[in-house]
Amino acid sequence: MYTLNKSTQAELNRVQAIIKKELASEKIIQEIYEYIFNAEGKKTRALLCLLASKSRHIKPTNRINLASIIELLHTATLVHDDVVDESDLRRGTKSVNQVWTNSYSVLMGDFIYSKAFILMVKLEISTILDELAKATNDIAKGEIIQLELFEKKQLVQLKDLLKVSYLKTGRLFEASAKTGAILANRSNKEIKTFGLLGKAWGTAFQIQDDILDYEALKKLDTGKPAMKDYKEGKITFPLFFALQNAKPKDRKFIMENLGRTKISKKDQNKIYQLIHNNKTQQNINALLEKYTKESQRHLNNLRHLPCYNEMLDLIMFSKIRKI
Amino acid sequence: MYTLNKSTQAELNRVQAIIKKELASEKIIQEIYEYIFNAEGKKTRALLCLLASKSRHIKPTNRINLASIIELLHTATLVHDDVVDESDLRRGTKSVNQVWTNSYSVLMGDFIYSKAFILMVKLEISTILDELAKATNDIAKGEIIQLELFEKKQLVQLKDLLKVSYLKTGRLFEASAKTGAILANRSNKEIKTFGLLGKAWGTAFQIQDDILDYEALKKLDTGKPAMKDYKEGKITFPLFFALQNAKPKDRKFIMENLGRTKISKKDQNKIYQLIHNNKTQQNINALLEKYTKESQRHLNNLRHLPCYNEMLDLIMFSKIRKI
Repeated sequence: MYTLNKSTQAELNRVQAIIKKELASEKIIQEIYEYIFNAEGKKTRALLCLLASKSRHIKPTNRINLASIIELLHTATLVHDDVVDESDLRRGTKSVNQVWTNSYSVLMGDFIYSKAFILMVKLEISTILDELAKATNDIAKGEIIQLELFEKKQLVQLKDLLKVSYLKTGRLFEASAKTGAILANRSNKEIKTFGLLGKAWGTAFQIQDDILDYEALKKLDTGKPAMKDYKEGKITFPLFFALQNAKPKDRKFIMENLGRTKISKKDQNKIYQLIHNNKTQQNINALLEKYTKESQRHLNNLRHLPCYNEMLDLIMFSKIRKI
Repeated sequence: MYTLNKSTQAELNRVQAIIKKELASEKIIQEIYEYIFNAEGKKTRALLCLLASKSRHIKPTNRINLASIIELLHTATLVHDDVVDESDLRRGTKSVNQVWTNSYSVLMGDFIYSKAFILMVKLEISTILDELAKATNDIAKGEIIQLELFEKKQLVQLKDLLKVSYLKTGRLFEASAKTGAILANRSNKEIKTFGLLGKAWGTAFQIQDDILDYEALKKLDTGKPAMKDYKEGKITFPLFFALQNAKPKDRKFIMENLGRTKISKKDQNKIYQLIHNNKTQQNINALLEKYTKESQRHLNNLRHLPCYNEMLDLIMFSKIRKI
């Protein structure tokens, strides 16, 4: 596991404390809320925001608040995604829709979203509000496009996958970095660079997420069930390349089983092998490398900032992370 | 049907036009979005906001925008409610979850919510942002409390029903009136009065909604299926009084059938008769009258404002409306 800089870890702990404090007085809401936030996520987006906003001239309180807002927004999308994907697990424990019902998930997602907006208004920085409202809208847009993309159960194009990855993942990374930089009163050029860094890193992060979904087969503890994407009928980056490189017979096999919730061990292994075809592994690693490099390239223009070293470490770790 | 003042109707038409303009470039989102907003609602909350913001000194554009934001927020809650309630019909046509799926409803709700927040940020009035973010949060809270309240299938108290009605309906009426008054630069005292008027009227509106749910049995065209609340297992105001006034045997009958989706014509009629018990009708009408009077009482303190007459007409019409 990656070890954070001590002071950054302390800040991230404060984010968790802020989030947990945002309880409602109603018992049922408390119960679900605590359940959701007891299962701690990696808080990558909050971390990105904390680093982007690092500055000697800015009150830590506002930075922690902004990072908490971003973590709340992200969690709200996860709670809704679990309904969309009919997921059983989230962050290694049962998802809200499993413990309670879909209805509770829909409403708790709304509760957490609006909680984030309440906290956002308190910051009183309209450019931050604007960016986060737009990012939230884009995430929903990305999820809808993804839903339609995979409904037809047909081959997709790389540009579609990249668009969806940007909207559903890259966009909030972008917003986290940009709003952090806005809070720290960075120049317009720096804010833009942070945005581009976040966008590229978010895409790399999604690619690694997609890779890990297939690795869960090998019993690595990712907190997610094995081949979840495949069983949900989603063509992700690794499967896209596997389809491209597979023989017609294997391609047919992949497409026929795509979206089946029950797949035999033998068939799962076959798909795993097709993903681990040399060419496919080269393709997927090259794509991951491309976006990692791109985010590093933008980071290079931020060498003068206090977050540089930590940010570089994080980006480098992100592409080899196992959870 | 109620006929609005010509200029107010023109403004309401502009609200509809603004909403319809807020399309995304993606075809699937356009399609669902247009489907949702082609079925026009009554726009009572938008109307309340338009009236509360009426002032010679305020640009109509901002008033129309604020009313559109409120209508978007309200519609987002409806789209999510349809998932929660597993509804088939909404505003007289099939609900989104019926034409598409629950997943699309969850995500389109999020899309519309965040669209509303994007437009809100543009207004650049932080007290309005704050009020609407808090109202959105309270609506979700009210829906969650309602969900839990009726899960246990047991008798409830009037104070619980009033709390839920306030949060899920009164709260947005309150916010519509308050933010309208804020936009029109009204005094703090007037803003407060508008809030109280909206809160009381919203509760009256919900009571009439609950009454109409049972009237749909008599084939009045409410755009809603008959006894929807009862079939969803919800004890609403009319049923609350019916339970209170029923003989033990009838009370048992009501509770045993509550939440059944299929109820015979004969049993439906029996429940209808229990609702139409004299005492029950007296109770429900008295409650409706109480909250209507309360909103009128607050309105009386706003006699000096240009919206007075139209607002009074609307409140009086609201309690006898059939849809």
